[in-house]
Amino acid sequence: MTTDVTAPARTMRAGFVGGGFMATVHSRAARAARAELVGGASSSADRARDAAQRLGFATAHASLDELLADPDIDVVHVCTPNATHAAIARAALEAGKHVICEKPLATTATDAAALAALAAERGLVAAVPFVYRFHPMAREARARIARGETGRLLSVQGSYLQDWLAAPHDDDWRVDAALGGPSRAFADIGSHLVDLLEFVSGERIRRLSASTRTVYEARATHDDIATEDLVAVVVELASGAVGTLLVSQVAPGRKNALSIELSGTEASVRFEQERPDSLWLGRTDASSIIERDPARLAPDAARLSLVPAGHPMGYQDAFNAFVADAYAAIGGQTPEGLPQFDDGLRAVRVTEAVLASAASGSWVEVAA
Amino acid sequence: MTTDVTAPARTMRAGFVGGGFMATVHSRAARAARAELVGGASSSADRARDAAQRLGFATAHASLDELLADPDIDVVHVCTPNATHAAIARAALEAGKHVICEKPLATTATDAAALAALAAERGLVAAVPFVYRFHPMAREARARIARGETGRLLSVQGSYLQDWLAAPHDDDWRVDAALGGPSRAFADIGSHLVDLLEFVSGERIRRLSASTRTVYEARATHDDIATEDLVAVVVELASGAVGTLLVSQVAPGRKNALSIELSGTEASVRFEQERPDSLWLGRTDASSIIERDPARLAPDAARLSLVPAGHPMGYQDAFNAFVADAYAAIGGQTPEGLPQFDDGLRAVRVTEAVLASAASGSWVEVAA
Amino acid sequence: MTTDVTAPARTMRAGFVGGGFMATVHSRAARAARAELVGGASSSADRARDAAQRLGFATAHASLDELLADPDIDVVHVCTPNATHAAIARAALEAGKHVICEKPLATTATDAAALAALAAERGLVAAVPFVYRFHPMAREARARIARGETGRLLSVQGSYLQDWLAAPHDDDWRVDAALGGPSRAFADIGSHLVDLLEFVSGERIRRLSASTRTVYEARATHDDIATEDLVAVVVELASGAVGTLLVSQVAPGRKNALSIELSGTEASVRFEQERPDSLWLGRTDASSIIERDPARLAPDAARLSLVPAGHPMGYQDAFNAFVADAYAAIGGQTPEGLPQFDDGLRAVRVTEAVLASAASGSWVEVAA
Amino acid sequence: MTTDVTAPARTMRAGFVGGGFMATVHSRAARAARAELVGGASSSADRARDAAQRLGFATAHASLDELLADPDIDVVHVCTPNATHAAIARAALEAGKHVICEKPLATTATDAAALAALAAERGLVAAVPFVYRFHPMAREARARIARGETGRLLSVQGSYLQDWLAAPHDDDWRVDAALGGPSRAFADIGSHLVDLLEFVSGERIRRLSASTRTVYEARATHDDIATEDLVAVVVELASGAVGTLLVSQVAPGRKNALSIELSGTEASVRFEQERPDSLWLGRTDASSIIERDPARLAPDAARLSLVPAGHPMGYQDAFNAFVADAYAAIGGQTPEGLPQFDDGLRAVRVTEAVLASAASGSWVEVAA
Repeated sequence: MTTDVTAPARTMRAGFVGGGFMATVHSRAARAARAELVGGASSSADRARDAAQRLGFATAHASLDELLADPDIDVVHVCTPNATHAAIARAALEAGKHVICEKPLATTATDAAALAALAAERGLVAAVPFVYRFHPMAREARARIARGETGRLLSVQGSYLQDWLAAPHDDDWRVDAALGGPSRAFADIGSHLVDLLEFVSGERIRRLSASTRTVYEARATHDDIATEDLVAVVVELASGAVGTLLVSQVAPGRKNALSIELSGTEASVRFEQERPDSLWLGRTDASSIIERDPARLAPDAARLSLVPAGHPMGYQDAFNAFVADAYAAIGGQTPEGLPQFDDGLRAVRVTEAVLASAASGSWVEVAA
Repeated sequence: MTTDVTAPARTMRAGFVGGGFMATVHSRAARAARAELVGGASSSADRARDAAQRLGFATAHASLDELLADPDIDVVHVCTPNATHAAIARAALEAGKHVICEKPLATTATDAAALAALAAERGLVAAVPFVYRFHPMAREARARIARGETGRLLSVQGSYLQDWLAAPHDDDWRVDAALGGPSRAFADIGSHLVDLLEFVSGERIRRLSASTRTVYEARATHDDIATEDLVAVVVELASGAVGTLLVSQVAPGRKNALSIELSGTEASVRFEQERPDSLWLGRTDASSIIERDPARLAPDAARLSLVPAGHPMGYQDAFNAFVADAYAAIGGQTPEGLPQFDDGLRAVRVTEAVLASAASGSWVEVAA
Repeated sequence: MTTDVTAPARTMRAGFVGGGFMATVHSRAARAARAELVGGASSSADRARDAAQRLGFATAHASLDELLADPDIDVVHVCTPNATHAAIARAALEAGKHVICEKPLATTATDAAALAALAAERGLVAAVPFVYRFHPMAREARARIARGETGRLLSVQGSYLQDWLAAPHDDDWRVDAALGGPSRAFADIGSHLVDLLEFVSGERIRRLSASTRTVYEARATHDDIATEDLVAVVVELASGAVGTLLVSQVAPGRKNALSIELSGTEASVRFEQERPDSLWLGRTDASSIIERDPARLAPDAARLSLVPAGHPMGYQDAFNAFVADAYAAIGGQTPEGLPQFDDGLRAVRVTEAVLASAASGSWVEVAA
Repeated sequence: MTTDVTAPARTMRAGFVGGGFMATVHSRAARAARAELVGGASSSADRARDAAQRLGFATAHASLDELLADPDIDVVHVCTPNATHAAIARAALEAGKHVICEKPLATTATDAAALAALAAERGLVAAVPFVYRFHPMAREARARIARGETGRLLSVQGSYLQDWLAAPHDDDWRVDAALGGPSRAFADIGSHLVDLLEFVSGERIRRLSASTRTVYEARATHDDIATEDLVAVVVELASGAVGTLLVSQVAPGRKNALSIELSGTEASVRFEQERPDSLWLGRTDASSIIERDPARLAPDAARLSLVPAGHPMGYQDAFNAFVADAYAAIGGQTPEGLPQFDDGLRAVRVTEAVLASAASGSWVEVAA
C-alpha cells in the first residue's frame, strides 16, 4: 500500500477568502486533505454565508478581518480576483497565517516581491497553486530531465490555448484590467505555462521577444484598458536553448490545451495537460508512450500517483496534491516541488517582460 | 455556478468493511461527499485499527458485528474480497443499513438475486460501484443514444484489457477461486464492461457465445481451480444488434483499457475509459470529438461535470460522484443512473452465461 | 541508397480485365513497376476502349479471348466483379498467363481450390492482392512476432469497419449476390482482416463462432438474396489463442478502419491500416510507438519502405509493392510474403466457415 | 469515376539532373504522370549512367549541356544540392526548357528573383516542389479558410521538427554551407513550413523576430561555416495575426513533424503532415475530425484525392500530384495552387529575414 499524499500529519484549519469556482476547487482539496473548513469570507457577508453553505464550511465569518482574527485558522486560501491578491495575502501574512494565494500572486512584480519577502521574514508557508506541477507525469518528466535522460536542452515548444473568451461577448472579471491587472491571457495562463516549463526543464527563461494581440478592443463594459487575448513569444533559456510559446484565450476548439515539448541532445519529452496521465518520450531510434504506473515512476511522481495505471487522474487530483503538500509544509515537512511566493513572483516577472517586449518591439531580459 | 453533485442533502455516517485499495477509494469519495467516516471493520482488529488510522476514520470498530450494531451508521461500504460480499451485504441489510457493495455483488447469481430481493424488501438503498457510468461523457453518450442521435443500434465492440496479471508470477487474491469466485477476469472487469455497454446503449445482451482461456494454470499457491485470464465473446442484443467483447488481464501494455464503440444506423459513438473526457461521434459525413464542456452537455452529463472543459476529470471523480449519488438516494432523492443490486445481479448473470457458453461450446441465453 | 522494390528485373507486359476503380489502382502499380500496359478488356468493347484511354493502355483489346491470345502479355490483372473471378482466372492460367486476381479469389472454396491447383500445376505465378501485407509496419509487426518479441500468442482483436454502405440507399454490385457471391462484408473486407491477422501472427484460425446481420434486407433491386452487412466472430487459433473479429460496412464514421491487436506473453502489437506508418508495441513496463524508419526496421520491412521516416506511405504504395513483388516472382525471384492463390483459397474457406457458423449457431472448424 | 489528376493531357519528356533520393522521388512522379524519362545528367557521366539504370531512364546523357541540347525534352527536373540550383535552372530556362527545381530555389533572394524574372520573361513553367500543398487535406483547410469558415485569422502555430541530424556525427551535404547555403534548417524545411502556412492561410508573414541555434559547431569536415540546426520565430501576418514557428533538425523522436494550427474568430484548423489524411477543425461548441473523403471535400481537395476515404495517401502521392500539375501547366492548363518560382523566391526571402533577425536581434520586415 503506497502512502497517501492526502493523508495529513495533523488536521489543518483552513479559512477561505472568495466564494467562486476557484474557492470550490480549493475547498474540495482542503476537505480531501482532511482539513477543518472552519471559516469563510467573501465580498459581502451574504456571499460569505452563501459560500459557507454551498461549500460546507463549518463557520461563516462576516469579514476578512474577522477571519484573520480567528486564532484557530492555520492557513488562508485567497481565491479572489487578481488585483486583490496582494492586499489580502499581505494581511494574512501579517496576521501570522500561512497563505495559499491564487495566481497571479500580484499584478506587479514589486508587489509580488514584497509578499515573497514578507513570507520569508515571517517564516510562513506561502504557496501559489501552479497545480500542473502536481500531475505525476509532469514530475516524471522533470525527474527524467534532471537525471540526464534527455541530455543537454536544445529547444522548447510551449503553448496554452483556450477558447472561453473566443466570442466577442465572452466576459469575466479577468477581462477588466481594474480587477485582472495589466496582463490578462499571459498573467492568467501564460504564468502556468512558464512555471511548468521552468519547473520541468530545471532551466530559466533568460530573455524573450514577444508580440501580443487584443482581438476585441472592448468586451462588455471594460472599455478603458483592453488587455491581451493572445501572446506569441520567442524565448532563450539560460543554457542557450531556444523556443516558442503561444498563449491564447481565443483559440476555438482548444479548451485548456497546455502542452510543453522539450528536446535535448538525447531525447525529447512532451507533456499535455489534457492527457496528463501519459508522457511522450521521443528518441531517434524509437519513441515511448509512458503511462502513469505508480510502480514504475520516479519517487516524486509515484508519491503523487493515487490510483493505479489506467485509472485516469485529473485536475482536482492535482489540486488536492498541491494543497496536501502545502499543508505538509505547514506541518513542518519539505515536500518536493511546492510552488511558493518566489515562484509566483517569477511568473509576474516573466509577464512583465512579455508586456515590455511587446510594447518596445525588442528583446527583453527577464529579471532573475 | 453549477450545483455540485458532491454537496449532500444531509451528512451521512458511513462505515467501512475492508481496508485495502478499494476501501481507500471509497473513503476518499465518502469524505468528498462530506460524510462522517465513523466506523471501520476489517479482517482483524489490528487491520481495522490500521485502516482507521490510515484512512482517517474517527472510530475503529473491532468487528463487523460491532459496526452493524452502531446505530449512527447510515451506510456500510463493503470493500472485501468477492467471495465475502454476499454474507456481509446480507448482514448489513438485515441490520437495516444501506449498502454500497463492491462488484461482483456475489459469486453466484442465486446469491446476488437474494441480496437484490432483500434490499427491495427492506426498502434500503443497495448500490454497486459500476463507477464508469459516472464519467460525464459516458452519460453524454447514453443521452445521445437515448434521444435517437445514433439511430437503431447495429453493432457493438467492447474490450477491457489490463496487464497487471500478465507475468506468470503476478498474483492477487482475485486469482484464488476460493476468494475470487469461479470467474476471475470476466467477473472482475468484464462485469464493468457489460454494465457500461448496457447502460450506455440502453439495450441488453440476449445471448452470447464465449471462449475463455487460462494462460497460467497455476499462479502462486492457488492451484486447485484456475480461473480465466482472458475471454472472447460474440453477443447478440435484444434489438438484434451483434458485437464482440474481449476481456483480458494478460494484455501487455494495456493498463485499464475499457472501451466501447456502438454503431447505429445514424451514427457511431466511442468511449474510452482511459480518455474519459472526450467522446468520438462518428458520422458518415464528418466525425466529431466532443470534449466534456459542462455548458454543452446533456443535463445528466453536465451535472457530473465538476470542473470546466479541458480540466481533466478522472477515476476518483467518477467514484466520488457514484458515492454522492448513492448518498443522495439514501437521502431520498432519485439520482439518474445509480447502479443498484439489480445491476450487480445482472452482471453476475452475464458472467455465468459466459462460463456456461465456454464450457458447453454453444450459445447461451442470458437470463433477463 | 536502398534498392527500390519497384525497380523490376525485366519489363513486364501486363493485360487488364475490368476498368473500374480497382483496375485504376492496379494500372498505377503496374506503371510504377515500369510495366508495359499493352492490353485491356472489359465488359464491352466500348468500355474497354474507354478504360484504355483513361488508364493510358497502349492497346485496347476488344475481348478477353483476344487479350489472352496476345503472346506479348506476361500477366493478366483480373479486376472484375467477384463472381467472374474464377472463370477469368482459369482462362488466363490455361492460356499460360501469370495472374493477379482480385479478392475474393472465388465465391466458393471449391472454385478457389481448383484455381490454386491449376496455378501450381502450370507453374504460374498466381497472386491475390492482400495488399495490407505490404505496409512496411505490418511486415515489421510480423518480423517482431516471428522472432519471439511478443512471446506466445494469447489473444487477438481484429476489426474492419467501413461506412460506405451505411445508408439504406448505398449500393454497389457487391451488394448483388449474383455478382458479389453469398458473402458480402466478410468476403469483401473480412478476407483482408483474416489474411492480415494470419500473416502477421504466423498462426491460423482453427475454429470460430459467428453471428451475421443483414441490416437492409433489400438494397436497390438486388432483392433475392440479401448478403450480410455485419459479422461478429469469436475465433480460436491453432496455438490456443482466442480473440474477436468485427467486420462491418455499416459503421458510421469508420472509413476503412482495419486494425489488429495481438497480445502475447511478452508484448502486444497493434497495427492500424489508416495509420500504417506506425506500430504500437505494448509492454507492461513501457509502450512504444515505432515509426517507420527504414534504417531501423527488419529487412523485409525496410525493403518496402520507399521514403524516409515521417514521410507517410499510403495505400497506393502498398499496392505498388504488391505488384512489384508479383512481377519479381514472375521474373524468377521469391519475394517474401507474396499472397498467392493458396492464400486466396484460405480466405474463402474462412468466409465459408463464418457463414456456416452463423447459419448453424455452432462452432465451425476451418478447413486447413 | 473521378478524373485522375495523374492522367496527362499529353506525354511529357522529362530530363533529370541529379541522381540521389530526390531524383528517385521525382522520377517516380514523372512515371506516374506517364512521362517519358528520356534523359539524365548527374555530377559525372558514371553517376548519370548509374542513375539512368537505377531509375529506369531510357537514355543517359553524359552532361547537362547534352541534356539541355536534346530538343525532345520538355521539362528539366533539377535535383541537385542547393548551391547549384540557380545555375542549372538558369541554363535550363535559357535552353527553353520548363523547369521543376528543388527547394530552396536559390541560396540568395537575388538569385531567386532573377530566376523568377527569367521564367516569366520566357513564358516557361517553372515550379518548386512545395509538395505538402498537394495533400488533399491541406487543400481542404485552405478552401475552408478561403470561404470564411474560420473567420478572421488570429493566431498561427507552426512547427517542423526532424531528428535526422540529432547526433553529432549525423552528416549530409546540406550541412556544408558551400553546398547547402547560409541557412540550413530553415532553408531546408522552414521553407516548406512557411510556404504551407502562407498557402493554407492565404496570408503573408509581414515581420518576424527570430533566434537561431547551431548545436554542433563542427559536423564532419564542414568546419568553416556552421549553419543553424534550430530556429524559433515570432511572426506577425499581414492582417495582424501573430504566431510562432519552431524549426529543428535536432529534435529526437520527431521524424518529419510538420504541423500548422491556425485559429480564427470562428474556428481553428490543424494539419499534420505525418497524418495528412485528416484535419482537425476546432470550434468552441464541438470539434471535428475531417477524414479525407473525396465525395465530401472542396473541389480542389477532391481532385487530388485518388483513393477512397480511409485508404491512406502519402508523400509520394503528393509529389505525384505536384508533378502532374506542373506537367498540366506545361500542357497549357492552369491547375490551382501550383508552387512556382515566385513561391520559391518568397521562401528565400523569409529565410533571409530569419537570418537577419537572428543576427541583429531585432524585428525584420519580410520583403513583399
